[in-house]
Amino acid sequence: MDLHEMDRYIKSLIKEAGHRIRTSFRGDIEIETKAHVNDLVTNIDKEIEQLFIERINTDYPGHRIFGEEGFGNDIQDLKGVIWMLDPIDGTMNFVHQQRNFAISLGIYKDGVGELGYIYDVVNDDLYHAVRGGGAYFNDEKLPMLQETSISESIIGMNAMWATPNKYVEHESTIRLIRDVRGTRSYGSAALELAFVASGRIDAYISMRLSPWDIAGGSVIVREVGGMTSNFKGDKENLLVQDTFMAANPSIHGKILSEYIQPK
Amino acid sequence: MDLHEMDRYIKSLIKEAGHRIRTSFRGDIEIETKAHVNDLVTNIDKEIEQLFIERINTDYPGHRIFGEEGFGNDIQDLKGVIWMLDPIDGTMNFVHQQRNFAISLGIYKDGVGELGYIYDVVNDDLYHAVRGGGAYFNDEKLPMLQETSISESIIGMNAMWATPNKYVEHESTIRLIRDVRGTRSYGSAALELAFVASGRIDAYISMRLSPWDIAGGSVIVREVGGMTSNFKGDKENLLVQDTFMAANPSIHGKILSEYIQPK
Repeated sequence: MDLHEMDRYIKSLIKEAGHRIRTSFRGDIEIETKAHVNDLVTNIDKEIEQLFIERINTDYPGHRIFGEEGFGNDIQDLKGVIWMLDPIDGTMNFVHQQRNFAISLGIYKDGVGELGYIYDVVNDDLYHAVRGGGAYFNDEKLPMLQETSISESIIGMNAMWATPNKYVEHESTIRLIRDVRGTRSYGSAALELAFVASGRIDAYISMRLSPWDIAGGSVIVREVGGMTSNFKGDKENLLVQDTFMAANPSIHGKILSEYIQPK
Repeated sequence: MDLHEMDRYIKSLIKEAGHRIRTSFRGDIEIETKAHVNDLVTNIDKEIEQLFIERINTDYPGHRIFGEEGFGNDIQDLKGVIWMLDPIDGTMNFVHQQRNFAISLGIYKDGVGELGYIYDVVNDDLYHAVRGGGAYFNDEKLPMLQETSISESIIGMNAMWATPNKYVEHESTIRLIRDVRGTRSYGSAALELAFVASGRIDAYISMRLSPWDIAGGSVIVREVGGMTSNFKGDKENLLVQDTFMAANPSIHGKILSEYIQPK
């Protein structure tokens, strides 16, 4: 597997998909709901996933595809090469704002993240990484994350996690909100991972993410020294929905041990 | 007072100030704290406010200035023409992210908002309005806000307001978080007002804002049919710090009556 050849191929494919998404704003977008009323999907999410699948099947036969919209393979293990794709991460933003969403893609070989891409479609900003080669924001190499502290940190998290929920003790989350410098919520896990990688926020936490939400971003975050795990501190399991945190390495352990109390 | 002449003057001054802010990223930024450790101010906030004051004093003598950094006039009433200025709204974002902050300016005559400006400095996006003339995003006229419902709304609010606080019953805020489609938090009141005006979010609520945070944005929001008030439903008082909400008119009253319980 020639990672650099794949990297060039993927960048070109992502830009083409981004162009199709931007063009879609001129037409009507069909919106449906999935698991619940606020879990949105559009015809564009589906078309973009299908575009990737057609291309991958033609140009990389033998590779498998794990996509949010379910048109890819039925993935039960991480053997071989798997493309983990969210064609539009932040569909609610796509529908309501026509911005602040991303194409998220991670390429894994036997469970190891080799390539990661987060494409902010409207701003034409591509965050990307090849394992061991550092992370980039467009053509600019991202610096390694610098040491910080809880009290100087900005944390990406949804306000929902400060309310009683089935995943963690919310009182501990409230302590975290009080102890950090500030919280932000942008509505796209992929973009929030890109912001962790570029140091705009110092951590991102979520109680419930799917493999395609975090597959690309995790590769990028780790290339700048960031840490990723579930709330137990275990390496993320890319076969199931789980809790997730990505953070600056100087606060990752402290957030887990002092502020996150899984139920 | 020729509003259209002032409008041209202000746009030019804001763009000049924005250029100075963007240029400041090349040098060192001095950061201090104000009322508390997370209330940040930099030398750039101060320099930009002073730039405005020099120009206004020269070109609009007789006008008064109410600025966040306190270099303007001691404002105890709303008589005459007052420029309400936040030179950098979202200073924490300015410091941590070098983006997602804005110059916020409202021009009030005898307490009536005549002109409003929110300038997203890094994206070079100017939201602006002349009272009675509609609101604009750069050169594009913003459409009137369309009817929506609580369950389809995205609300801008800080996660802090879902936690016990001295301003409102947080259980009611939690009900709001559960009933809406989603929440977002961008860390700049001015930008969140610009997002209400452009329909990217449907409401913005905060327990504690100052006149210069909301003066420009309120003019813009009202020009697209949006409603602004404090949590009692009263017109905002531009002499004091207060609670604040700006919202799509179809949900403003309902949020106030069903979800906001001031203490």
